Amino acid sequence: MKVGLITIGGELLNGTRTDTNASWIGQSIEAVGANIDWHMTVNDNAESILSSLDQVPKEIGYLLCTGGLGPTHDDITASVLYKYFDSKSVFDESYWQLLIERFKSRGKDIPLSNKNQAMIPEEGKVIPNPIGTARGLHFKNKNYELFSMPGVPSEMKYMMTNYILPIIDNHSEKNHIKMIRTTGIMESSLYEIIHPYLNTDEKVKIAFLPRFTGVDLRISSKDINYLNKFFSKILPLIDKYYYGNNNEELEDIVGKILIDQNKSISTAESCSGGLISDRFTNTPNSSNYFKGGIVAYSNKIKTDILGVNEDLLTKTGAVSEPVALEMARGARKAFNVDIGLSCTGIAGPSGGSKSKPVGLVYIALSSVDYEKVYCFNFTKDRKTNKLMTSQTALNILRLYLIKND
Amino acid sequence: MKVGLITIGGELLNGTRTDTNASWIGQSIEAVGANIDWHMTVNDNAESILSSLDQVPKEIGYLLCTGGLGPTHDDITASVLYKYFDSKSVFDESYWQLLIERFKSRGKDIPLSNKNQAMIPEEGKVIPNPIGTARGLHFKNKNYELFSMPGVPSEMKYMMTNYILPIIDNHSEKNHIKMIRTTGIMESSLYEIIHPYLNTDEKVKIAFLPRFTGVDLRISSKDINYLNKFFSKILPLIDKYYYGNNNEELEDIVGKILIDQNKSISTAESCSGGLISDRFTNTPNSSNYFKGGIVAYSNKIKTDILGVNEDLLTKTGAVSEPVALEMARGARKAFNVDIGLSCTGIAGPSGGSKSKPVGLVYIALSSVDYEKVYCFNFTKDRKTNKLMTSQTALNILRLYLIKND
Repeated sequence: MKVGLITIGGELLNGTRTDTNASWIGQSIEAVGANIDWHMTVNDNAESILSSLDQVPKEIGYLLCTGGLGPTHDDITASVLYKYFDSKSVFDESYWQLLIERFKSRGKDIPLSNKNQAMIPEEGKVIPNPIGTARGLHFKNKNYELFSMPGVPSEMKYMMTNYILPIIDNHSEKNHIKMIRTTGIMESSLYEIIHPYLNTDEKVKIAFLPRFTGVDLRISSKDINYLNKFFSKILPLIDKYYYGNNNEELEDIVGKILIDQNKSISTAESCSGGLISDRFTNTPNSSNYFKGGIVAYSNKIKTDILGVNEDLLTKTGAVSEPVALEMARGARKAFNVDIGLSCTGIAGPSGGSKSKPVGLVYIALSSVDYEKVYCFNFTKDRKTNKLMTSQTALNILRLYLIKND
Repeated sequence: MKVGLITIGGELLNGTRTDTNASWIGQSIEAVGANIDWHMTVNDNAESILSSLDQVPKEIGYLLCTGGLGPTHDDITASVLYKYFDSKSVFDESYWQLLIERFKSRGKDIPLSNKNQAMIPEEGKVIPNPIGTARGLHFKNKNYELFSMPGVPSEMKYMMTNYILPIIDNHSEKNHIKMIRTTGIMESSLYEIIHPYLNTDEKVKIAFLPRFTGVDLRISSKDINYLNKFFSKILPLIDKYYYGNNNEELEDIVGKILIDQNKSISTAESCSGGLISDRFTNTPNSSNYFKGGIVAYSNKIKTDILGVNEDLLTKTGAVSEPVALEMARGARKAFNVDIGLSCTGIAGPSGGSKSKPVGLVYIALSSVDYEKVYCFNFTKDRKTNKLMTSQTALNILRLYLIKND
């Protein structure tokens, strides 16, 4: 089944926003066996929206639209659609009362401009939105079914997942897609390992998607058995790097292992500034194993709270192998946990020297019966250094836990 | 001048890649006073490309294309354009020799598949590409000039900057654009404040861009004086919410004020799990004022390191106004700084109760001569709660520093 997409918003055309909705939608549509075959990005004015609706190719069976359902003057998608689908709109008093209540429960008065979001079509359905105030719209004409969603990603994703994808899925042939997530290996090295197993008959399609935190492999096939056979061949070759599937994050995987092994952990971060701790706590129920962390951005905290030896700090400097190790030990003792994980480095852009350049990072792990410090040279960019430090630290912890170090 | 854009590539439609080229192009085109008015994303097959060329609206004066100029079998843009513009292609021997030399200097033999990149049109020009092997194409017909570029971002940007933007710029009038960033106010409430000042003659264009962390106002005008007058009218009305311009982040703004006032700060985070600390340390040189933080994910740390009273914890629970305040005090004292900033709450998805639902967050600020605790009810989503907590805490700090609380 061919699917069309119209993303509405001047901010997409003038580049104020990158259209991440379109790529999320493209992936989710392919996952249910259909394809986005036609995509226009248009300004949020009636003329542009109407003109794009007139250009929808005749083979399109479902048309998705995002954007323009908010409460302000430039949110005109709904009124354009009422007109295009020749439907009157009526005021939904019960929804308006519900919105008033929702705002009240947060101690706020609802602005009157939200009133346009309580309109519903006479000819057509509304798509529920428990996350925000703008409900979606679902119209049909003789060629296609149209689904209009807000541009807010979380609200769009809710509607896609709970309302739209189930409808599209019913009519189509499944495409089996799996994302294999790796870290700690470069794209070209991963390619060298895998390419002897890439078939030429296109039964399996594979895309390499490099990120700063690792390389994702997007593997798809119409044939689930063939796909599973392919996995059983390649996964053993990359098991040191392979940590999860699809949208699984490294912190979620590590969290599961910590729960399985009934182990607790704490962090002592310098150059990553709290990002490791932030990532641990993105996982629901992480308080079961993550007991807390110290962001030791000053030497005084390294000595006072983490117990790093003051003479050592003076002798080796804060960015050094022994200080990293004492920080990991200090985190383990201060929080009375099984494992302490630490990092210290030069995040940049300034603060580097010839012997300790920007990007130099030490990561240490300390448990009762095992301790190790690792040294890395990441990049010149501050945020990328923080990100790579956090990913590498989590992977060091993973390899320690699964005894694959 | 109206500009059209065709981005070519199946990976954009199926979501394997997010179209970051489109937003970069949109920004750079607007900066020279023109606008992307029409944008299609199409598959890399001849039929789709030809069909999109047939649909270019007549008011488009320049048409930009990206993608499909590589050396492999699915790179067919050039051959489609030769056909569409009725131009023969001829082999450019001198460029081919140059490519051979370039590869040789890297110790490589050039694959024969690169030979198609040495073709040039009889009717049309090539756009130089010193970064990669694929040169761009420049055609004219009676309606528009077409520029075809590779999809590789660095090569596209080179051609835009050095060849295409100078051509488009010559014909157009400068557009003045400013992004006004706000937090702590909803889109609809901001709209109610500003809409009486919105002129109807379109001298100033304004777009509301809501995020979980606040609403950005993108304001543009051809008339810089008019734009400045507009700012002087509206900024005093929203100064409690307005924190920065363009790409400035709240943590950068707060950091500047802390440096100006020569004040230091530390954090004690529970529900935000280190995100506030992570954001403080995204700012270069933040170690000048940010001394560190405690992520107190267990009660034991709240008592042992932050000095929260154990009886209080038992009596009021960790998520309470007095505990938030003791955490802020504890952070201030443990790190010996001017300001302690803390939060405690129910991040979700579990852990909520009727009296303390998911989304309930207390944020406290403590300095020598001022202390205050704030209570919020955010959302049901864990990561969004963390994000909103961090943004709100930073804004509470900002308002305290500028004495606008």
